[in-house]
Amino acid sequence: VFRVTWDLAQAEKEGYAHFMLKEIHEQPKAIRDTLSGRLEGNRVVFPDLKLSPTELAAVEKIHIVACGTAYHAGLVGKAAIERLARVPVDVEVASEYRYRDPLLTEKTLVIVISQSGETADTLAALRESQRRGAKVLGIVNVVGSSVAREADDVLFTWAGPEIAVASTKAYTAQLVVLYLFALYLAELRGTLSEAERAGLVAALQALPEQTEAVLGLAETMKGHAESVASATSLFFIGRGLDYAVAQEGSLKLKEISYIHSEAYAAGELKHGTLALIEDGVPVVALATQPNLLDKMVSNITEVKARGARVIALAMTGEAELAKTVDDLILLPPTDPLLAPVLAVVPLQLFAYHAAVARGLDVDKPRNLAKSVTVE
Amino acid sequence: VFRVTWDLAQAEKEGYAHFMLKEIHEQPKAIRDTLSGRLEGNRVVFPDLKLSPTELAAVEKIHIVACGTAYHAGLVGKAAIERLARVPVDVEVASEYRYRDPLLTEKTLVIVISQSGETADTLAALRESQRRGAKVLGIVNVVGSSVAREADDVLFTWAGPEIAVASTKAYTAQLVVLYLFALYLAELRGTLSEAERAGLVAALQALPEQTEAVLGLAETMKGHAESVASATSLFFIGRGLDYAVAQEGSLKLKEISYIHSEAYAAGELKHGTLALIEDGVPVVALATQPNLLDKMVSNITEVKARGARVIALAMTGEAELAKTVDDLILLPPTDPLLAPVLAVVPLQLFAYHAAVARGLDVDKPRNLAKSVTVE
Repeated sequence: VFRVTWDLAQAEKEGYAHFMLKEIHEQPKAIRDTLSGRLEGNRVVFPDLKLSPTELAAVEKIHIVACGTAYHAGLVGKAAIERLARVPVDVEVASEYRYRDPLLTEKTLVIVISQSGETADTLAALRESQRRGAKVLGIVNVVGSSVAREADDVLFTWAGPEIAVASTKAYTAQLVVLYLFALYLAELRGTLSEAERAGLVAALQALPEQTEAVLGLAETMKGHAESVASATSLFFIGRGLDYAVAQEGSLKLKEISYIHSEAYAAGELKHGTLALIEDGVPVVALATQPNLLDKMVSNITEVKARGARVIALAMTGEAELAKTVDDLILLPPTDPLLAPVLAVVPLQLFAYHAAVARGLDVDKPRNLAKSVTVE
Repeated sequence: VFRVTWDLAQAEKEGYAHFMLKEIHEQPKAIRDTLSGRLEGNRVVFPDLKLSPTELAAVEKIHIVACGTAYHAGLVGKAAIERLARVPVDVEVASEYRYRDPLLTEKTLVIVISQSGETADTLAALRESQRRGAKVLGIVNVVGSSVAREADDVLFTWAGPEIAVASTKAYTAQLVVLYLFALYLAELRGTLSEAERAGLVAALQALPEQTEAVLGLAETMKGHAESVASATSLFFIGRGLDYAVAQEGSLKLKEISYIHSEAYAAGELKHGTLALIEDGVPVVALATQPNLLDKMVSNITEVKARGARVIALAMTGEAELAKTVDDLILLPPTDPLLAPVLAVVPLQLFAYHAAVARGLDVDKPRNLAKSVTVE
């Protein structure tokens, strides 16, 4: 059983209609707190990490293992670690990983991610990995949780108590820890120039304020959410990091609005799912990655041609996108690698308002528990 | 442009209502032809393979890259290669792989899979991999296609011409080639005992006849298909290899029936999708893997408790399953690793009959092309 260990005052709604809405708005603070004490100038420092720089520099392979939203954070973590530190990363859902006899060597680092630190499958994957001789690093929000106690090393997210079943601030805080870890590993391995690291650190430090700005989209997203509230099917599409965020946006919508939404790698649409696109089907298109923008415009054009109603999120490319999509939401400019932090926020608001518009119990969706402590 | 190079007589329906149905029924022959000439006693032989045993034994990592149905075959290939030859495998959709700056070394083998050999993203991934110095092995159905010409090595599937947009016999033939390749690699690397190899070879040789037997389920699957024909949402669930097959079953249904179906790793349901399960939602549960049967029974019980109507496919466990599910389909016994070949056939029939029941153009679903030769 999972116990909330913070005091009651912290666990109140403070004027918000739901815990989920409160927690969405706590993200600037969660990001700031998670960065706090971990940057010295342009360097990432992890004062409590027990894994030595030598051990970490010798890592040849990383497995990230998690469930649900934490798994989606892992997908972004893979991109960050591979791009910055050039270590290959596999990301796998814990309920699959633990039973599939994964190939581990003494040079494999296993990273498990869990808000509660009590997710049953994740905990089982942690134990199985240790049994096979791998070191396990936990990324956890709840101090004193099983994952925090049993992992060889822990990097905490400082998101504070998360009460709503649908995870929001824990996800963005997980992303921040993964970015920090990727930068730390990159420095140890010498895979990133000083200037690149400085640029990313500056971009990380700008995130709390930028997230605050993105929260200003609440009314806009409420309007979009109300316009899809009666849809029976909805698709999120994206490429690269946007596909990772699309999966999280889709899960958010699904779990609290009960609309059957699905995320697709935009390039895969033509291999089947395009058949489901007909007049009026809502499609949320993520197009935050400048190097993939042309390809996304082409995929958006395809779904538009079949009658989809497209809401797009982007950072740049206003000119190309504005004439292609029905609604365009522009995010503040950041390094494309960090875009997921800003892109997920409107999607959280979208899911929240869709559920409210459908008159559902946002904080306690049917059939779901906050921490999945059974298998 | 993709040209069918077989003659017209071969491309006729031979009394079947649709090419797809004909091709489903050609699977015993496609499997037999694909095995033909590649087994000598208990050993796999690839007379035309240019990659030397030394080169193959030195491979430390395999990337399988493909789109759509071929990608789903790759998921099964990963399990087979990792389990039998103990080489770690990543499987990725080509439209993602080609843009993500994959980490390749001279010890990485890239396998691309494509029925037509003309899939634009797959071909681009092949070229990108070669540019980065990797050897590429193609698994292809069409002789003389671009992938067949440009890959460093080719293993053909001998499925014959596939005309229906929804791929069926090409998929099962791809599975067979991947099993053969996994066995071949296992022998080179000495990771499998003679007895284990003999058992698997015998099981492979039994597949054509067993597939023929599974085709006898056509009427049963027609009944199930008609019972879901008016559903707006449907879920396929499974674990391990069953999850891979679930993804293929879901894609098949989606592309020709336009029912919004989605495949889920059964253990992930509790992390969100369970919220979508309510009275009468059809769930197809794959439970062919004996070592995961208990866990599947538990997941099936969860969805049943929320009102789902469950059709299950299994090889064993009749006693536990019969009292849990609404309908149970039993497959002939084979090695669990080969179960996907037999499990996919009823799902193909299910998709086919659902599309027919909905009065749709089975062979030419809206919005889709047979070979995706644009990006």
